[in-house]
Amino acid sequence: MQKAGRYVIEGGGKRLRPALLLVVSRLLGYTGDRDVCYGAVIEMIHTATLVHDDIIDHARVRRGRATANDRWGNQLTVLLGDWLFIRSMEIALEMGDLAILRLLSRATVEMVEGEILGLQLQHSQDISYEQYLDLIRRKTGELFSAACALPSLFAPELERYRQPLAEYGRSLGACFQIVDDLLDVTASESRLGKPVFSDLREGKLTLPFILLLPRLGTKQRKAVADVVASGEFRATEPAELRAWLDEHQVLQRSREIAAEYGRRAVEALVALPASPERDALAIAPGYIIEREY
Amino acid sequence: MQKAGRYVIEGGGKRLRPALLLVVSRLLGYTGDRDVCYGAVIEMIHTATLVHDDIIDHARVRRGRATANDRWGNQLTVLLGDWLFIRSMEIALEMGDLAILRLLSRATVEMVEGEILGLQLQHSQDISYEQYLDLIRRKTGELFSAACALPSLFAPELERYRQPLAEYGRSLGACFQIVDDLLDVTASESRLGKPVFSDLREGKLTLPFILLLPRLGTKQRKAVADVVASGEFRATEPAELRAWLDEHQVLQRSREIAAEYGRRAVEALVALPASPERDALAIAPGYIIEREY
Repeated sequence: MQKAGRYVIEGGGKRLRPALLLVVSRLLGYTGDRDVCYGAVIEMIHTATLVHDDIIDHARVRRGRATANDRWGNQLTVLLGDWLFIRSMEIALEMGDLAILRLLSRATVEMVEGEILGLQLQHSQDISYEQYLDLIRRKTGELFSAACALPSLFAPELERYRQPLAEYGRSLGACFQIVDDLLDVTASESRLGKPVFSDLREGKLTLPFILLLPRLGTKQRKAVADVVASGEFRATEPAELRAWLDEHQVLQRSREIAAEYGRRAVEALVALPASPERDALAIAPGYIIEREY
Repeated sequence: MQKAGRYVIEGGGKRLRPALLLVVSRLLGYTGDRDVCYGAVIEMIHTATLVHDDIIDHARVRRGRATANDRWGNQLTVLLGDWLFIRSMEIALEMGDLAILRLLSRATVEMVEGEILGLQLQHSQDISYEQYLDLIRRKTGELFSAACALPSLFAPELERYRQPLAEYGRSLGACFQIVDDLLDVTASESRLGKPVFSDLREGKLTLPFILLLPRLGTKQRKAVADVVASGEFRATEPAELRAWLDEHQVLQRSREIAAEYGRRAVEALVALPASPERDALAIAPGYIIEREY
């Protein structure tokens, strides 16, 4: 478990959720060390879901390295995820704050329910824009939201910042997830650390395709549906698909929607005290949207 | 999730852990309804581990029916287990008792660590008696212990019963698990609801075999080792194995060890007020040991 845990930790990742938590904590003038502990808890919860997701998706590569399930098998990896979930809760319990525990467990339930919903929608070509938004809110938005809102529970007088911080996190999470889904379509394999069009191959329709499908003719739509259903490029080529995405400008439209969520996140910040930390939060969406394609 | 959840619930099971919790609660004179809620939580935690265990063991049959993983696949079943774990914690959180939450999460961590340890020892022929006892304490004893000790946290004046109740549960859990391991060797398939010698086929050495191996000659030991390593009866037959178990009286010896744990459980009860409920707890080991072989 130590070896596998270390391997997963060393895989890196952006540590975006704890980073947000720490910036918000400083913004609110908190000077203790509970934020560091909760940052670790949130990253552990996030890692637990990644580890189980990779089993579910039969993913073999993440962040340019073999996934835990590829390296140690599904058996140990199921338990690694369980252990991360439960130990993260136990660490949060040591801190003894029930309101924060409720915030974290609610976000975690939403995430798992989002995964279940995603599984149910897998290989389906009939995903509405609304279903997609609900899915990414659960899968990403709620934990981002919890990370940002959490420090507002450190003291009663900070509670008035809870709603705007939760809203900031939720919108930033949507922005982040849309860009992440876009990268899967537009980035290079070496940049992604996993194969391009992974989502589609796993039968997952993301925003660009949800926007694209109604714009396509019957034959083209069938070609996309075939990839979603079979997980393979048989009747069509990745390059062809990319040409359709360009032709119908849905990547540009997806980026605009991500930017719109970024703007919403920034708008939520007006309720917070002006500070260098607030400025840092305000430029976060820009960085996310400018991630290399 | 509803459908899969209902299926797992309808699979039945003995509901031993919530039953213990409810009897102890009544024994301590508790009249509220928190015990019912925590009983549900404990059964959900137990079910979550069963569901993930069946994935890990590639089990296809439990309680005479197809396992969740056999019916809905590993993907949904990983998420079903996650959902049960986290929702159970969330329900316990609603009750708002930190000490009880800590008791439950500690027992759950022990259980998952027990599963990990079990996986590590899988296909190994070198499991000591002590390792086996540690394994069953983690896998079974700690949740039994938590179920029994939990109602002592309902009121400060009940805390003095915590240690004896925890000890009762831990010993009863060991007794139960040894009998369960025995049944896998001695019971009929129709009685078990799964194939006989399942543990051995899954590469798990249980008490009868741990006692048997040092008593066997090199050739016989090799035959057992082959089943543990390969998961198949190739060089030997189940009937032959059973003959060796009989010949060396290790089933009888295992039953005695289970009975010894049963006695320890009963001894712990002296610290509790005499009552019909205490009498009920006192006869529980007898029922467990007399489970049909």
